[in-house]
Amino acid sequence: MRYLTAGESHGPQLTTIIEGLPSLLPVTAEKINYDLKRRQGGHGRGRRMQIETDTVEIVSGVRHGQTLGSPVALVVTNDDWKHWTKIMGAAELPEDIDPSEIKRQISRPRPGHADLVGGMKYGHRDLRNVLERSSARETTVRVAVGSVAKALLNELGISIVSHVTEIVGIKADSSLLEGKTADEIRAIIENDPCYCIDPEASAKMVTAIDEAKKAGDSIGGVVEVIVEGLPAGIGSYVHYDRKLDAKLASAMLSINAFKGVEFGIGFEMARKKGSEVHDEILWDEEKGYTRATNRLGGLEGGMTTGMPIVVRGVMKPIPTLYKPLQSVDIETKEPFKASVERSDSCAVPAASIVAEHVIAWEIANAIVEQFHSDQLPQLKAQLDEMRQYTKEY
Amino acid sequence: MRYLTAGESHGPQLTTIIEGLPSLLPVTAEKINYDLKRRQGGHGRGRRMQIETDTVEIVSGVRHGQTLGSPVALVVTNDDWKHWTKIMGAAELPEDIDPSEIKRQISRPRPGHADLVGGMKYGHRDLRNVLERSSARETTVRVAVGSVAKALLNELGISIVSHVTEIVGIKADSSLLEGKTADEIRAIIENDPCYCIDPEASAKMVTAIDEAKKAGDSIGGVVEVIVEGLPAGIGSYVHYDRKLDAKLASAMLSINAFKGVEFGIGFEMARKKGSEVHDEILWDEEKGYTRATNRLGGLEGGMTTGMPIVVRGVMKPIPTLYKPLQSVDIETKEPFKASVERSDSCAVPAASIVAEHVIAWEIANAIVEQFHSDQLPQLKAQLDEMRQYTKEY
Amino acid sequence: MRYLTAGESHGPQLTTIIEGLPSLLPVTAEKINYDLKRRQGGHGRGRRMQIETDTVEIVSGVRHGQTLGSPVALVVTNDDWKHWTKIMGAAELPEDIDPSEIKRQISRPRPGHADLVGGMKYGHRDLRNVLERSSARETTVRVAVGSVAKALLNELGISIVSHVTEIVGIKADSSLLEGKTADEIRAIIENDPCYCIDPEASAKMVTAIDEAKKAGDSIGGVVEVIVEGLPAGIGSYVHYDRKLDAKLASAMLSINAFKGVEFGIGFEMARKKGSEVHDEILWDEEKGYTRATNRLGGLEGGMTTGMPIVVRGVMKPIPTLYKPLQSVDIETKEPFKASVERSDSCAVPAASIVAEHVIAWEIANAIVEQFHSDQLPQLKAQLDEMRQYTKEY
Amino acid sequence: MRYLTAGESHGPQLTTIIEGLPSLLPVTAEKINYDLKRRQGGHGRGRRMQIETDTVEIVSGVRHGQTLGSPVALVVTNDDWKHWTKIMGAAELPEDIDPSEIKRQISRPRPGHADLVGGMKYGHRDLRNVLERSSARETTVRVAVGSVAKALLNELGISIVSHVTEIVGIKADSSLLEGKTADEIRAIIENDPCYCIDPEASAKMVTAIDEAKKAGDSIGGVVEVIVEGLPAGIGSYVHYDRKLDAKLASAMLSINAFKGVEFGIGFEMARKKGSEVHDEILWDEEKGYTRATNRLGGLEGGMTTGMPIVVRGVMKPIPTLYKPLQSVDIETKEPFKASVERSDSCAVPAASIVAEHVIAWEIANAIVEQFHSDQLPQLKAQLDEMRQYTKEY
Repeated sequence: MRYLTAGESHGPQLTTIIEGLPSLLPVTAEKINYDLKRRQGGHGRGRRMQIETDTVEIVSGVRHGQTLGSPVALVVTNDDWKHWTKIMGAAELPEDIDPSEIKRQISRPRPGHADLVGGMKYGHRDLRNVLERSSARETTVRVAVGSVAKALLNELGISIVSHVTEIVGIKADSSLLEGKTADEIRAIIENDPCYCIDPEASAKMVTAIDEAKKAGDSIGGVVEVIVEGLPAGIGSYVHYDRKLDAKLASAMLSINAFKGVEFGIGFEMARKKGSEVHDEILWDEEKGYTRATNRLGGLEGGMTTGMPIVVRGVMKPIPTLYKPLQSVDIETKEPFKASVERSDSCAVPAASIVAEHVIAWEIANAIVEQFHSDQLPQLKAQLDEMRQYTKEY
Repeated sequence: MRYLTAGESHGPQLTTIIEGLPSLLPVTAEKINYDLKRRQGGHGRGRRMQIETDTVEIVSGVRHGQTLGSPVALVVTNDDWKHWTKIMGAAELPEDIDPSEIKRQISRPRPGHADLVGGMKYGHRDLRNVLERSSARETTVRVAVGSVAKALLNELGISIVSHVTEIVGIKADSSLLEGKTADEIRAIIENDPCYCIDPEASAKMVTAIDEAKKAGDSIGGVVEVIVEGLPAGIGSYVHYDRKLDAKLASAMLSINAFKGVEFGIGFEMARKKGSEVHDEILWDEEKGYTRATNRLGGLEGGMTTGMPIVVRGVMKPIPTLYKPLQSVDIETKEPFKASVERSDSCAVPAASIVAEHVIAWEIANAIVEQFHSDQLPQLKAQLDEMRQYTKEY
Repeated sequence: MRYLTAGESHGPQLTTIIEGLPSLLPVTAEKINYDLKRRQGGHGRGRRMQIETDTVEIVSGVRHGQTLGSPVALVVTNDDWKHWTKIMGAAELPEDIDPSEIKRQISRPRPGHADLVGGMKYGHRDLRNVLERSSARETTVRVAVGSVAKALLNELGISIVSHVTEIVGIKADSSLLEGKTADEIRAIIENDPCYCIDPEASAKMVTAIDEAKKAGDSIGGVVEVIVEGLPAGIGSYVHYDRKLDAKLASAMLSINAFKGVEFGIGFEMARKKGSEVHDEILWDEEKGYTRATNRLGGLEGGMTTGMPIVVRGVMKPIPTLYKPLQSVDIETKEPFKASVERSDSCAVPAASIVAEHVIAWEIANAIVEQFHSDQLPQLKAQLDEMRQYTKEY
Repeated sequence: MRYLTAGESHGPQLTTIIEGLPSLLPVTAEKINYDLKRRQGGHGRGRRMQIETDTVEIVSGVRHGQTLGSPVALVVTNDDWKHWTKIMGAAELPEDIDPSEIKRQISRPRPGHADLVGGMKYGHRDLRNVLERSSARETTVRVAVGSVAKALLNELGISIVSHVTEIVGIKADSSLLEGKTADEIRAIIENDPCYCIDPEASAKMVTAIDEAKKAGDSIGGVVEVIVEGLPAGIGSYVHYDRKLDAKLASAMLSINAFKGVEFGIGFEMARKKGSEVHDEILWDEEKGYTRATNRLGGLEGGMTTGMPIVVRGVMKPIPTLYKPLQSVDIETKEPFKASVERSDSCAVPAASIVAEHVIAWEIANAIVEQFHSDQLPQLKAQLDEMRQYTKEY
């Protein structure tokens, strides 16, 4: 499968086309909208998030609630486009308009954003031409794409959930996850303002977010995605670019502001001995092969082991601050204190939703590529066979 | 550019084909062999590493020391192939041989390796069929590929170096890197048994490695790759799969036993405020745009900023231990204590070399894709133009 | 570059996303609409073509008439969608509706269409689920994509034109092309009902089309695309999948109903001697290297030679006939005479426009991949350098 | 699946790596060598073909006669490499050697070859650097790759055969094919000097080849590939770049000297009415859906119909002639009569073997991508299911 996205932050719409989905997969706007709403939630979002409610329109590839096998196109309209048509319109400027009169031009790049280098790369002097696309607004349609992927995973008995494990050094108690399924975790975090499993930590996170906001500063954190119900053997060790963990790492790092990724106990492996890291292999008649632990996060040799995938990503604090940073005007070359374009003080909860959806896509894609996936029924049957086969191996 | 690798650990040879290199690039076996040798070094390697000296043969695509523009094929012959021809040969078994008589068959999967899942996936009962390919032996040709990529980077004024920053919790003092160029770092670590910048930490690492070996255990660590001299604007923010950091993350995770990656100050960003994370933008007549710090590791919006790229990867302890782990024989279903196939107690220094080379490849590839790269002279001229253009922007 | 298309024939819209275009390229809806209109013209189109006038909306990636470097999304709305919302809507059917009551269901596959095999492949019993996507309606957005590609080629001094060389055995006199530039050819054929350079042949073609229509039959033909102004050296011989002619062949065969492709004198080469086929190489101070003839159609070794590319494709007669063909109802398994879904008797002129645009895309893509193409000015400068360099070689 | 090839015509070896093959596929050097030998046969080959006997060595990915799932590397050694080590060696020239003293340098590009443009593109003054790679010698390993693909097709009940249908205007009587299976056709043409089904036409072809040779000229022709036993539904109509015919066309045009391709009755469709072109759909209890004819060559909507694929390619006469063509020395800019590098007067029979193998690869690849293909037994079972399913549809 593959997908492309298009759309500027203040353009008329965000668009995505997904190619390669199996036919006969149930897909509805309602389910996608639910995920879009979760992306807009979480404590710490600015005003814009509260006034906009993103909803998707399915304009191709789905008929009467099921995929056709043909490409699926999704559109999320920008409600405030009417205020931006002159500023962002595709049409040529009328000849009697002086380009310098266009409103909201930007010549002052913000540190931590794509502004400066993007302007250099594409030859823009109005840095709006960069930030309209580099904005995390684009992740709206990536969530929509992931929501379709989740619909597929759901049909295949695979569950996925994300949660926030750390904000500005405040860590959730991971022991609270023990024994909980993905669905149980989701039920808990859905009602938490920080999408966090640990109410105590969450309360501290809320305070920290509010304080950061008051101080005109921003804070980052760590999100974790858990994928359950996978058969063993997705991905492959035979060639370096077919390893599933490499693909998941790439997906995580492709999210705006993400700067690191780790699987299982992750960087802790640098502090432990082999006998404390690897997961012993067990077998019994009923379940087949299992693992005593899951410190490797469900992946060995670039392949799923059948244990849950556990992957975390770190998000840097949002680079747009009220407390300004030093930068340089590209026209005057004068130093200035960087301006504010938007005002979230912490986007980690929202980003956890993005992470869930980009990981969902990669997992779904790996499955569709590996199996016969013209139609959902064929795919389902094969996953079942694979589970049975690996159990009996 | 693209490349494929082939070869089993005890097969006749490792092979790689690199397609898409510019013509007129100086490439010699000597330089590649030097990098292969570094991969075989470092404290903690087992006996096999000491007896084998990998050398490469260039069998296509290079003439009189320069690339032709046609695909480059590299071969690394396995010296002990003569002892394995019967066990690993490609020819059909003679009819009078009972397959069960083949020596060195394996029915006991090692935890932490691809053995079990690989056997399931590809339908093998002799798990040698898996481990011969999933072995880190394959990284030999990945280093060879990266060595060619480094020859290209070198021509373009780009330096790359890797070093070990942590082994089993012993951390090098990162302040020792300050003010040092990649070349200066290389000069120091080249003679260190752990490829570590900090002699005190290195001494402790050596001790830890020796102790792990004595205890029949293994230990992991963290490696860091630094890339200097890049122009701004390599990579792009316009589509999620064109972000350079996503590609580097994928490369790092594609190395055997790597379980995490981070850029700049990495996971520390989850513990800091925005005002402590982002790199302020400076400008002066002579240098153009620079940054006051490099906490983001040389990448913003998926693009190089012109500052050095700093990327780290975490390697788990090698899963093959003298101190055995619980596993299950796939034929008898009897539990057993997992056997030892090889005996390195710590491969982190060697893995740092692999990391350097897979990162070198991704950087070189990003440059070749972005610029006109039929011939080296064209490419060189364009990089120079890009540097001048971004300075004057 | 890459693009995806989505959209069913009677769905709300056709959509395409183009990723990888250089920034600063002038793109306007007007120019694209002009090409869409040409696609809808030509003698022999049915009623639907006359009532619909396709127009494009640029919803992303273009601001004030220029590309931003970010993905370009184009939408062509279907005017009669309002009559099809119940039949083709994405929403789930209300529970009280019996799926068998949906109008315009199809259980009778038409020979020559994707109906039967598409239904098998994707598990559809209502073959409308296939034909809505397999319809040539999709070529509307492929023309839109090609129109953007042509805008790029135009900036680079490259012209492209298509014309009809044969319909049901009536051949245009190719000597009329001699000495004419692409622009001159376009000026002539634009006003011809069959997009044919030869008025006499065109008149016969018109008659043949009318007769076919009267007889309830359909007819095919041959179209030719000519690309002028290319520098030498686009494409490469070094790997089989980098040959430009292989890519052009693939593009031509990807057009609905196309069944063959040939370059230069094409299949005639099977009837001639080498001394009559190859193009002798000339040189003079002013022009550099030229060819005495262009029998190979501008490509040698998978690369442009600097001579015009000449490529032809053959289109089968449209498979939907008033004069029905034998087929089988997939539900009853009863034989029947295949039904009519639409009524063009000849779509060759329209298809010539599609051919022009898919070839334009491949050429533009090959150039963008080969050169540094972040921005149009850089790309332009490099093409000029390439032309100068090859002249002085 | 994917593969890369490397190797210069007079270099030490040709190499290919095939990635993505299912495991447990029987592969032997003997079968590949048989196909390599067929490529070297056929009337009209020059002296070089007679002295060399290409044989393959399987150096990775196959153990005891079966694929492992890991990449397969194949090597074909050049026997006369020992005479070319100084001229073509990879090592840098010793400092005391003047590059102009290297033997067999070429400054005179041959019309119809990649020489001139290849030299421009990659900046070579010694055109040997081009022709060593652009030579059809490379097709040796493409045949080896296709031979492995054929081993896979064979396991899946799919047969493929190629034959020569025309040389310099002499056409084989196609009615001789009627009622014959691929295996029967192969049995006939294998012993024909022109790989032609029609002994009378073949005799004339032999004479024509001999006359061309005597006259110092060269001649081309048309080859046809037939693929039998395919299930319906391979390929897809849902996106333009997933159409199987587009991929086959690309493969055919990627063969050296091929300039056109057509399916079924091909360009004849431009001369016929729809009612004479399309294949009526039949159904009976026992066979399921069949077609009354196969004028479309087994493909509708970019998918296999279950009827045999019939695809033809046209090969231009070999551009290297004793009867020389006008060209220009790139150093002196003096006109000259183009020199002879090799001496085949007709390579059409050999090229038919190449065509068979590149088509085999594309078909095998399309199947492997579409189905679950980790292991051969899984793939086999699915093809059987697909055949049963489409029959019962």
